[in-house]
Amino acid sequence: MDRSALGKITSGLYIASSMKDGKFNGQIINSLFRVTAKPLTVAISINKENLTYEYIQASKLFSLSLLAINTPMAFIGLFGFKSGRDVDKFAQAGYKTGSTGVPIVTDHSVAWLEAKVVQQLDCGTHVIFVGELVDFDNLAGGLTLTYDYYSNVMKGKSSKNAPTYIPKEEAPPKTVEEAKYICDVCGYTYDPSIGDPEHGIKPGTTFEDLPPDWTCPVCGADKSHFEKTG
Amino acid sequence: MDRSALGKITSGLYIASSMKDGKFNGQIINSLFRVTAKPLTVAISINKENLTYEYIQASKLFSLSLLAINTPMAFIGLFGFKSGRDVDKFAQAGYKTGSTGVPIVTDHSVAWLEAKVVQQLDCGTHVIFVGELVDFDNLAGGLTLTYDYYSNVMKGKSSKNAPTYIPKEEAPPKTVEEAKYICDVCGYTYDPSIGDPEHGIKPGTTFEDLPPDWTCPVCGADKSHFEKTG
Repeated sequence: MDRSALGKITSGLYIASSMKDGKFNGQIINSLFRVTAKPLTVAISINKENLTYEYIQASKLFSLSLLAINTPMAFIGLFGFKSGRDVDKFAQAGYKTGSTGVPIVTDHSVAWLEAKVVQQLDCGTHVIFVGELVDFDNLAGGLTLTYDYYSNVMKGKSSKNAPTYIPKEEAPPKTVEEAKYICDVCGYTYDPSIGDPEHGIKPGTTFEDLPPDWTCPVCGADKSHFEKTG
Repeated sequence: MDRSALGKITSGLYIASSMKDGKFNGQIINSLFRVTAKPLTVAISINKENLTYEYIQASKLFSLSLLAINTPMAFIGLFGFKSGRDVDKFAQAGYKTGSTGVPIVTDHSVAWLEAKVVQQLDCGTHVIFVGELVDFDNLAGGLTLTYDYYSNVMKGKSSKNAPTYIPKEEAPPKTVEEAKYICDVCGYTYDPSIGDPEHGIKPGTTFEDLPPDWTCPVCGADKSHFEKTG
């Protein structure tokens, strides 16, 4: 039972958005598949602890934005590691509203879908919503971001409410020589051999040599939230 | 509402297998996501018309084989375009049986999962099964086959029971100059600029110049089942 086998399930990264009492929220998901062709339906899975779950239950509506492969880490961090209970995510993202009134993130997205919930299935920590599509369209050209690319090329992690999250005690052991630092908020790992090129930090820069005002490129936490891995 | 937007939903290609009365069957699916981490559960979607659906309903068990990126078209054709009502697919594929007795295809697979059905949701033409994992492991190294790679690089099509299937009248128009030929059984398109290298047909070979005993690399239909596209 090698847990890495589960990591071979292919998925994309998407933003699921919804609304409640005139407020908007959205979150990253990687659980989306098409169900029926007539009518056109899709299924998504959402953690019950998340604010977006509350909004979908209230409005019975959701949108999906299919993220582009070149989506910046900070944008994924905004929707994937921050809670709408703490920040207004839609104040920091380009979006439009669909025909049902639901917000649809348009930044860094190759396409979007708008759906009304027609069925749901309680699965314990998560609920599967089946949505009938009321509208959809392309936005930009280019490839869709996959979880595999996010995880292996961008070195991104899963949030603790995601089914792909690996608790620290189950993570594979690291060698002590690596001198990588992990963010205790979102799990992002600073790797000196990669640096943080998106924010001008060249490969080869040690964690100690990062500027004091450097913050986690995923969740925005400051350097005090990082600890050495190993 | 550009239908190509739906094609940007990321998915892999997997073989879902099950059993009934000592008989085994399996089929290609591209609808699979993880649901909960505790317990480990996954969801799949299966068309009610398919034999594998009957088997899963009978045994409440299924396995999933995550196909490798270099899976031959003929193998995908065996599990994706032929029915277990006509052929014994497991007579032509390497497999083992899991701890629950369910067959697990091991040929051309990078990993496998074995699950017992804990919930299901009727969605009209399809049913979503939620399965709790009882076992899983890696097989070979290498990348998992994605639907995008199958569709755009391998030029594969969807079977008529798949949610990704595009009926002929909705397919984008072709130019008459292309001289491609489409299989009326499975929808595979013979493209002279690509040939059929897996069976020794070089790029540049026209359909007319294919040997008389050449058959569709996906479903095995003979040349009489092909018609010119355009």
